[in-house]
Amino acid sequence: MSTSTLPRTKTIARARLQAGRVAMVGAGQLARMTHQAAINLGIELRVLATGPQDSAVRAGATHLFGSPANLEDLRELGTGAEVMTFDHERIPQEHLQALEDEGIALAPSASAALLAQDKLAGRRALAERGFPIPDFVHAVTAAQIEQFAARHGWPLIAKAPRGGYDGRGVWELGDPAGATTLLETLPDGLLLEPKLTIESELAVLVARSRSGQAVAYGAVQTIQKNAMCREILAPAPIDRDSAVEAQRLALAIANEIRATGVLAVEMFLTPAGLLVNELALRPHNSGHYTIEGCATSQFEQHLRAVLDWPLGLPTLLAPAVATANVIGATGDPVDPRTRLDQALAVPAAHIHLYDKEPRPGRKLGHVTVCGRDLQSVRSAARLAAAHLEGRPA
Amino acid sequence: MSTSTLPRTKTIARARLQAGRVAMVGAGQLARMTHQAAINLGIELRVLATGPQDSAVRAGATHLFGSPANLEDLRELGTGAEVMTFDHERIPQEHLQALEDEGIALAPSASAALLAQDKLAGRRALAERGFPIPDFVHAVTAAQIEQFAARHGWPLIAKAPRGGYDGRGVWELGDPAGATTLLETLPDGLLLEPKLTIESELAVLVARSRSGQAVAYGAVQTIQKNAMCREILAPAPIDRDSAVEAQRLALAIANEIRATGVLAVEMFLTPAGLLVNELALRPHNSGHYTIEGCATSQFEQHLRAVLDWPLGLPTLLAPAVATANVIGATGDPVDPRTRLDQALAVPAAHIHLYDKEPRPGRKLGHVTVCGRDLQSVRSAARLAAAHLEGRPA
Repeated sequence: MSTSTLPRTKTIARARLQAGRVAMVGAGQLARMTHQAAINLGIELRVLATGPQDSAVRAGATHLFGSPANLEDLRELGTGAEVMTFDHERIPQEHLQALEDEGIALAPSASAALLAQDKLAGRRALAERGFPIPDFVHAVTAAQIEQFAARHGWPLIAKAPRGGYDGRGVWELGDPAGATTLLETLPDGLLLEPKLTIESELAVLVARSRSGQAVAYGAVQTIQKNAMCREILAPAPIDRDSAVEAQRLALAIANEIRATGVLAVEMFLTPAGLLVNELALRPHNSGHYTIEGCATSQFEQHLRAVLDWPLGLPTLLAPAVATANVIGATGDPVDPRTRLDQALAVPAAHIHLYDKEPRPGRKLGHVTVCGRDLQSVRSAARLAAAHLEGRPA
Repeated sequence: MSTSTLPRTKTIARARLQAGRVAMVGAGQLARMTHQAAINLGIELRVLATGPQDSAVRAGATHLFGSPANLEDLRELGTGAEVMTFDHERIPQEHLQALEDEGIALAPSASAALLAQDKLAGRRALAERGFPIPDFVHAVTAAQIEQFAARHGWPLIAKAPRGGYDGRGVWELGDPAGATTLLETLPDGLLLEPKLTIESELAVLVARSRSGQAVAYGAVQTIQKNAMCREILAPAPIDRDSAVEAQRLALAIANEIRATGVLAVEMFLTPAGLLVNELALRPHNSGHYTIEGCATSQFEQHLRAVLDWPLGLPTLLAPAVATANVIGATGDPVDPRTRLDQALAVPAAHIHLYDKEPRPGRKLGHVTVCGRDLQSVRSAARLAAAHLEGRPA
């Protein structure tokens, strides 16, 4: 492990109050924005980073360099912290268990974290507790796939049980041949589900504190393109009953699985009602709109929850809030950091850049606009994002 | 000079785009909050700090350790930056002039900065341009003081022309004896003004970019106690004509003195109308309410202005916004960082702690509340601040 041996970091670490110190595994944009919330509260976020180019490190978060695959690094990160939390799910489950056994407070706990790390475990846990989910099967043989296809017809949706994000680890299977080929690359099998008729993809954020206080934000619509979230609309333009039911489901799940911190519950609104798709037990891309759009941002809320402090109001502050992600363009790399002057000319656009090197398909930032109606805020957010991505709006 | 020789800092400095890099002299809470705004935009703020305990350094701003009194340190800070700006006024005027002569872009310019550094220069510049100001005199002899008293009567207000802040450098003089004693301690004389009948103390923030684009925020009321700002109320509860006139005056001053960046114009509302008191050519305590209360925070606005990017909307986002400063208590030091759990229980309170060691009378943070009426937001902000200060609300 290459620990950061900066005198400054050491000095600060000594001078700090231990109470309120939060360790976070990972140093991407979620850690970056959590660091910003920690600055407001005057508390320290210490992140486990892979190197100086990590988004949270560039924003000045106190850091250790190391790997989440190395238990020693995780241990060192946790030393002196009141609680350890996570910017991503790529931490070996046995390490989480070991840390917990050693008395380090994890938020979420190892058992709750598993439900987001392992999509099969998540689906099973939700099914056991009676939450509505899509029909699914864990397929390890071609016969199992054909059996599932006989029930639902082709195409089917296949997901890697672990490690997928931003469209990676999700495939649409058109026929048995494609299914067999995919199986050969996934020795642990795949999570298979029918291709559903989806009216709307939704997400609900819940924050739940260590002692069980919980609040739900309103349901938002997530708009995907190439299986990657491009836009968020708040409130979700759906009927009121579905919106209320989505909040109720998310709160119930948070309590059932004893989530600690922010939990994002992704759902499908289908003709048959709401179905729970995935869980993320951390701040989530679908919640970036809360920074300007809600009385309490998801990042401050996450800190409050993991430190067991009173939770803040989840109230939406404007009739309509839209967020557009800034995604690395294909072809010639465009650096959004060089295009701020154009984007800032869009009135009321709140720009967040993650200070990451541009690569095609990489999330480089987001833009949020608050206003009176979804159509106008959505247009403005898309326009500013298009400027930053260097493409026509 | 003890330059920070952290490998991390060096690496980052090399990897950064030079465009959009802003240098800021000083690393207090204004630099801290400007750093937060810089994180949003994905740009680098590099601060000149006195040590690792400085508020902006603890928030992770890239930094050099040094002194604003040392021209070499200022030069090194400016190397590679697009523009240099300031978190305080305590930079020798001859150094500002030297930097400008060497081609470093200063925002504000040396000549504009002088008007805030030197209260006499500020008053004279405003008087020459016909702006309404209190009657004043530069008194260096007891005879001059008595002459001014003969015109206005006792008591009089005396100010040190340079270096005063937060109530330091301001005295009320009751009689000639007190005046003579004070003069002995101020070899450069003092700025003398009548004790005015003040209905309300106001502040108006203006942002003006290098190319002359300018926007004015609405007038706010500043509530002082022991000559230190305790509370900010937005919008200022004054008649509409005065509020509009205050904005007009502030915009006119910004243009006349060619301010660059954020300018705070402090004014007195008197029975005879508005009188301009002081100028601050930087983000200002009276503008912290803009972080949650306005479409564009004063800190992001300052960055936009000094980089000559489009300015943001100054719109107030709620009918009423109140900010209460968190001031170090007298007597036993109370550390607000240990009292967050109480303060966070106040609904809708946005807490900002500056991560500074508590000392009596020191500004340690602020709390902003947005809502429907000034009375309720003011009560909530005061309550949260009282919790943080460890005193009864």
